[in-house]
Amino acid sequence: MTRGSEFDPPAAAVAAVVEAALAEDLLPMGDITASLVPPAAAAATRLVARAPGVLAGTLAAATAYGQLDPSVSIDWRLGDGATLEAGSVIATLCGPLRSVVTGERTALNLLCHLSGVATATRRLVEAVEAANPACRVRDTRKTTPGLRALEKAAVRAGGGVNHRANLSEGILLKDNHLGGVGIAEAVAQARRRWPGRHVEVECDHLGQAMEAVEAKADMVMFDNMTPAQVGEAVLAVRRAPGGDRVLIEVSGGVSLETAPAYAAAGVDFVSVGAITHSAPILDIGLDLG
Amino acid sequence: MTRGSEFDPPAAAVAAVVEAALAEDLLPMGDITASLVPPAAAAATRLVARAPGVLAGTLAAATAYGQLDPSVSIDWRLGDGATLEAGSVIATLCGPLRSVVTGERTALNLLCHLSGVATATRRLVEAVEAANPACRVRDTRKTTPGLRALEKAAVRAGGGVNHRANLSEGILLKDNHLGGVGIAEAVAQARRRWPGRHVEVECDHLGQAMEAVEAKADMVMFDNMTPAQVGEAVLAVRRAPGGDRVLIEVSGGVSLETAPAYAAAGVDFVSVGAITHSAPILDIGLDLG
Amino acid sequence: MTRGSEFDPPAAAVAAVVEAALAEDLLPMGDITASLVPPAAAAATRLVARAPGVLAGTLAAATAYGQLDPSVSIDWRLGDGATLEAGSVIATLCGPLRSVVTGERTALNLLCHLSGVATATRRLVEAVEAANPACRVRDTRKTTPGLRALEKAAVRAGGGVNHRANLSEGILLKDNHLGGVGIAEAVAQARRRWPGRHVEVECDHLGQAMEAVEAKADMVMFDNMTPAQVGEAVLAVRRAPGGDRVLIEVSGGVSLETAPAYAAAGVDFVSVGAITHSAPILDIGLDLG
Amino acid sequence: MTRGSEFDPPAAAVAAVVEAALAEDLLPMGDITASLVPPAAAAATRLVARAPGVLAGTLAAATAYGQLDPSVSIDWRLGDGATLEAGSVIATLCGPLRSVVTGERTALNLLCHLSGVATATRRLVEAVEAANPACRVRDTRKTTPGLRALEKAAVRAGGGVNHRANLSEGILLKDNHLGGVGIAEAVAQARRRWPGRHVEVECDHLGQAMEAVEAKADMVMFDNMTPAQVGEAVLAVRRAPGGDRVLIEVSGGVSLETAPAYAAAGVDFVSVGAITHSAPILDIGLDLG
Amino acid sequence: MTRGSEFDPPAAAVAAVVEAALAEDLLPMGDITASLVPPAAAAATRLVARAPGVLAGTLAAATAYGQLDPSVSIDWRLGDGATLEAGSVIATLCGPLRSVVTGERTALNLLCHLSGVATATRRLVEAVEAANPACRVRDTRKTTPGLRALEKAAVRAGGGVNHRANLSEGILLKDNHLGGVGIAEAVAQARRRWPGRHVEVECDHLGQAMEAVEAKADMVMFDNMTPAQVGEAVLAVRRAPGGDRVLIEVSGGVSLETAPAYAAAGVDFVSVGAITHSAPILDIGLDLG
Amino acid sequence: MTRGSEFDPPAAAVAAVVEAALAEDLLPMGDITASLVPPAAAAATRLVARAPGVLAGTLAAATAYGQLDPSVSIDWRLGDGATLEAGSVIATLCGPLRSVVTGERTALNLLCHLSGVATATRRLVEAVEAANPACRVRDTRKTTPGLRALEKAAVRAGGGVNHRANLSEGILLKDNHLGGVGIAEAVAQARRRWPGRHVEVECDHLGQAMEAVEAKADMVMFDNMTPAQVGEAVLAVRRAPGGDRVLIEVSGGVSLETAPAYAAAGVDFVSVGAITHSAPILDIGLDLG
Repeated sequence: MTRGSEFDPPAAAVAAVVEAALAEDLLPMGDITASLVPPAAAAATRLVARAPGVLAGTLAAATAYGQLDPSVSIDWRLGDGATLEAGSVIATLCGPLRSVVTGERTALNLLCHLSGVATATRRLVEAVEAANPACRVRDTRKTTPGLRALEKAAVRAGGGVNHRANLSEGILLKDNHLGGVGIAEAVAQARRRWPGRHVEVECDHLGQAMEAVEAKADMVMFDNMTPAQVGEAVLAVRRAPGGDRVLIEVSGGVSLETAPAYAAAGVDFVSVGAITHSAPILDIGLDLG
Repeated sequence: MTRGSEFDPPAAAVAAVVEAALAEDLLPMGDITASLVPPAAAAATRLVARAPGVLAGTLAAATAYGQLDPSVSIDWRLGDGATLEAGSVIATLCGPLRSVVTGERTALNLLCHLSGVATATRRLVEAVEAANPACRVRDTRKTTPGLRALEKAAVRAGGGVNHRANLSEGILLKDNHLGGVGIAEAVAQARRRWPGRHVEVECDHLGQAMEAVEAKADMVMFDNMTPAQVGEAVLAVRRAPGGDRVLIEVSGGVSLETAPAYAAAGVDFVSVGAITHSAPILDIGLDLG
Repeated sequence: MTRGSEFDPPAAAVAAVVEAALAEDLLPMGDITASLVPPAAAAATRLVARAPGVLAGTLAAATAYGQLDPSVSIDWRLGDGATLEAGSVIATLCGPLRSVVTGERTALNLLCHLSGVATATRRLVEAVEAANPACRVRDTRKTTPGLRALEKAAVRAGGGVNHRANLSEGILLKDNHLGGVGIAEAVAQARRRWPGRHVEVECDHLGQAMEAVEAKADMVMFDNMTPAQVGEAVLAVRRAPGGDRVLIEVSGGVSLETAPAYAAAGVDFVSVGAITHSAPILDIGLDLG
Repeated sequence: MTRGSEFDPPAAAVAAVVEAALAEDLLPMGDITASLVPPAAAAATRLVARAPGVLAGTLAAATAYGQLDPSVSIDWRLGDGATLEAGSVIATLCGPLRSVVTGERTALNLLCHLSGVATATRRLVEAVEAANPACRVRDTRKTTPGLRALEKAAVRAGGGVNHRANLSEGILLKDNHLGGVGIAEAVAQARRRWPGRHVEVECDHLGQAMEAVEAKADMVMFDNMTPAQVGEAVLAVRRAPGGDRVLIEVSGGVSLETAPAYAAAGVDFVSVGAITHSAPILDIGLDLG
Repeated sequence: MTRGSEFDPPAAAVAAVVEAALAEDLLPMGDITASLVPPAAAAATRLVARAPGVLAGTLAAATAYGQLDPSVSIDWRLGDGATLEAGSVIATLCGPLRSVVTGERTALNLLCHLSGVATATRRLVEAVEAANPACRVRDTRKTTPGLRALEKAAVRAGGGVNHRANLSEGILLKDNHLGGVGIAEAVAQARRRWPGRHVEVECDHLGQAMEAVEAKADMVMFDNMTPAQVGEAVLAVRRAPGGDRVLIEVSGGVSLETAPAYAAAGVDFVSVGAITHSAPILDIGLDLG
Repeated sequence: MTRGSEFDPPAAAVAAVVEAALAEDLLPMGDITASLVPPAAAAATRLVARAPGVLAGTLAAATAYGQLDPSVSIDWRLGDGATLEAGSVIATLCGPLRSVVTGERTALNLLCHLSGVATATRRLVEAVEAANPACRVRDTRKTTPGLRALEKAAVRAGGGVNHRANLSEGILLKDNHLGGVGIAEAVAQARRRWPGRHVEVECDHLGQAMEAVEAKADMVMFDNMTPAQVGEAVLAVRRAPGGDRVLIEVSGGVSLETAPAYAAAGVDFVSVGAITHSAPILDIGLDLG
């Protein structure tokens, strides 16, 4: 498998996560059980999916073994974004038995968690696209602390797209930011002080959205509205002057069950925190010989 | 609230996680939306549970604001391990509005995830204790990479107990470690080379368990056996010479549904990876007054 | 002075730079000359500008003394963005003489460099605004390694605005990225894969710009064109359908001398690497009373 | 090119700078524009000087690509210290197009800045040596925060020599350190407490210099004196008993214009902060074939 | 030599120690004396013991050269745990002369210190085993700050076994922990809150030991008692119900002189801080051919 | 006690060592035994010397508790360099019992090791000064990896002076560096390339020393010569032209026993690695009230 796919997070981000994960599992004395295994024993093993889903995190798993013992070689059969069935062989590993068993939990914790994120994303993508093929699934900043770059890459592997990566790259105006200032003034100030940034406005009702459209925001986010309310609001926005240029996102309490209705309401994006903060792992195991 | 409770992970572990979490949300330019808020604006807000559950992660949330801006003061009303209802006020925060909104997501990501772990643990504990009051819930090493110390503390807050923290502190012999060597020889070698460590043996069937008891292992772990098989095995172990000193754990595919049956089979511990690797968040929000 | 102004970089970014700067000046043995000063000697000193310019870097200088010795107290008279004359008193410092002299060079290196960036920016801003009050000065990614967040904050203190902070937050398509693909296809792909990001296209001639406008890019960057060529191109873009929505930037070899002509050509932004990579320091000194 | 020349800073210092520089340009999501480039596209490019000067920073640039993607291979044609003309080919690079463009800015920022330091140094060296072939150019501690080891190596590449690297390695007594104590006593104390360290005394006038010579200081530094004053002082020092053993340095406001006059006054060293803190970059570009 | 022996500490722990050691010897300017050596000069050298003892720290020494310059190749003739005579050749090194001399002190500091620990341990082990072949030597947490994992591995190389690695992995109840609570209650609480951990009780006299046995502690530690007192206490413990399952350790002021008497008293372990905190180095040198 | 004495290493160096030491003793789960202590229990304790010696490391011990729990307050009665008798009270500590016992070992490991270094130094200083009051004791680079700055400060506390801190700050020419080049040429090259650095030449016999004096080296180091040989060599050096300016050091196998004879031979310095690499700890304990 060629590294450097669009689903790989930056190598430095992965290396830092793996370093911390190995440290918390191995320090200070190493794997004392594995020290009982003869040093010369070798293992040939396979990474196998135990349930259907979507693969993600192969760079992280590869980095785990790479940091632990570069003499463990991994032959990847599948890459991030691949569809898995129960029994799918993801990779084969060869190397010293000690290193293979010592690294197993760290590699699997990464692979299972990130594949869980990709799997939850894919399910939501399929539900949303069935309702509205033009609607996309976006993640949020509700990610697991320390794992944002990896989880956002897993979202892409699952077919979703990434919302802003952090507070530094885009403007998202909420009520709390506005204070006494109106939306028009806030958007204008954002344009003046941070030109070249995407400006989005969170709206609780149509009135705010119309203000945002008039203020030439790039995107409006409907928060905590019903699909019916959203449907009406989408129509109103699209009919407003300049409204065809504005992207529309729905967020807040969207679930696998409710997402299709929101998508059918005509929004461009549904954003769902659960695909990163509440995705159960995808069960992947290491089968020795 | 006094810090330093039994549910607090080491401050250094928390500080490292928080530093990474703030960095991934704020670097390189900081919160550019918050830069539009007047610097002098102040906020008085409350951390409120939006669903019932168990609180955990208060040290992490406190550290997030402490690192970001020590002038944000938090008055904690509840501590780790507290039972929450929807609407429970966990803490009040006062400080500069900019800092309060900038730190919100990092603090909540930590609090919601760790409270999610505590909540999942508590549910399992209640189910297990109803079936067998002497049986305890244990976590595993199947934790989120980088968060082990924090998640294991959250398990304690939920009423569970911690399995070994890492590969360095205890012996857990599995088939892979044994090679051609029998259990008796492996346990003896572990005792000789690593005296003063707890020695546990993973067993797929009763025969192995009887070997482990005879080898004077401290604990046997029944892996992937049915509750009925486990029940029989528990009886056999208890009747064996020295079997009353051996602790019995069941692991592998135990869920909220099946745990009571395993508990009722008489084991001392059920170990469940899902309480750390697949716990959905507990929804907690920040309400600006 | 209240911290947390719009000109402050994130505290974590500043702390990391200061930690490295103090380490390279003090390790391993500390300031051996200062060790000859009596420990009880105190100093009352003033930070004074020795030349006219714009102040930046006060958080960095404050952090340097804060990390070295919190008992050094600084009373800031002026903040980032303030206009300085030769002789302007920026702050007064009181504390142990040893700590004051030990921290002097680190604090001044930060303050002089960042104020140099702010000063170079202000000069360019004044020249540009005289030619076209609507035209803004933007920085680039041509920053000093390790100091990007601090230098970009200094650009804001000088009256400039920030281009994208890094390769992660915005799309800037250059010839090298296009390969055989046309601009229309590349912009469409960027929109599909990275929705919600600002998309800019670097153009060497008008034809590319017209393609970019048609492709609905957010911004075009004219690179290495003469002011006259840029003037023509601006008119053509503005007349094209949708061209009024497109922001226009000029970059590549723009200097203090040539910037006014580009600004007068009607662009929205001139981007200049020299304000960060080649700004001489602003001379600021520490006067012991 | 063989690594390990006298112009290379320690590899660990370079690696830390590069790690920070890549992080600030790539985290958290990587180069999202480059993600649009086909993964299999390859590039063959050349590092080319766009202006005359002196090369420095090749280890840093090599480390940038080495950390980013070891499959990018660089064939260095020239090494640190080489004289460049506009058009000089410094190196050729081959590798994946994505990696080549992603690393370009980080590698160039390092190379252009450090070559700028070497170039400014070389110009000063040439001016000084023309006036007095025995006189050497020294740098100062007025370096860019975080880059001291790299900039001091670049000064050597430009033909200069390094003053003390930090406050820990040598004694430099200034008025502020003396308090009520005379120079004789201060030098004696320095010798007693820190034997084996070079002891230099900063002097504002001849009287102090004569005291320093009598105190057997290793070096005197004339600060903020005119070339004529320095000339007189040099003669007086040289005539004093033991004065032939004392090295003489001039510092403070020395520029490219005034340096020859100071050199001609007979000093051993002129020290100039501007070669590190105010050197404009040397323009070097990456030409895709 | 194959890496990964039972005497190797985790590679990540070694790498961190080596990184700090090289930084403190080389930063900021590198080895300025070695910069005078011609870059092309090569060296072929040998690591040779200058006194009899036990070898430890080969991974650390290898890592030092590996981090400094991977082109230095080392051919290890002996591994950790090997018995050395004065003159024993431990390894041969080949590589650039500059790198060989630059890394010499860091590599030797590690090798000599850790071999010193192994040598002190081996002497104690031999004395103890002569008195009681079943008695083992254990280390303590009285290790050199930052070097615990490396020193504990050296203890194993010397034939000792490791006490708990840190405060996190095992329970050791002392008077200070008990407060008003009795031993029985404290042990019970430890079992309840931290099941699966080894529970040891420090005892100043026999009475406490009998309480600990009754409380089913795993181990008792006799602290600051005479060999005669210990001998009596051992007999009493062994005769008590369940006393045959309890391990007995003696600690506190045990030296090479007194250890045999304690061993002869029938304890399972003698613990000695001096093997880590006060072991003199073993003299090992680098002989240039 | 006022911090910032000449015996304190840089705070950043101490903080890094303490952070590593606490991490290796507390991660991942903290002090599980202390978790059994009631959180509200308080302790008032004293740091007491159990043997005579010299105190060092108080900043390190203070930093250990400061990082662990700032609510532990320490009242220092004695500072670094103080002479201790068995029973001397060094400090009193008050704070939560949990924190006091958790930090005890880390604080004592630092204090006992560094006081051991200071004590060994003081003994050597007293022996040397009795033989020759003008002769000083110097340390070497044979320090414990990671602890150089702290150990060198402890040497000063014991009355010794510090040799160069690292390879970066001074020139020490040995046979290995010379290659085919003579001493005269090597010293000249060192002066030319690294002016302002102390130049020392290691000499195995008088002939080399005479060459070094003629080459105007700052210092000669006699290595592995007998006191008688050194005595003769000192006389020869002093009589040579310029020989009165040259400092003379003896090194290599100097011990507490042989140092006085070397000192009496008239050298300026004796350098001894054993005061850092083989000093046994000074026994200091924490007495709970």
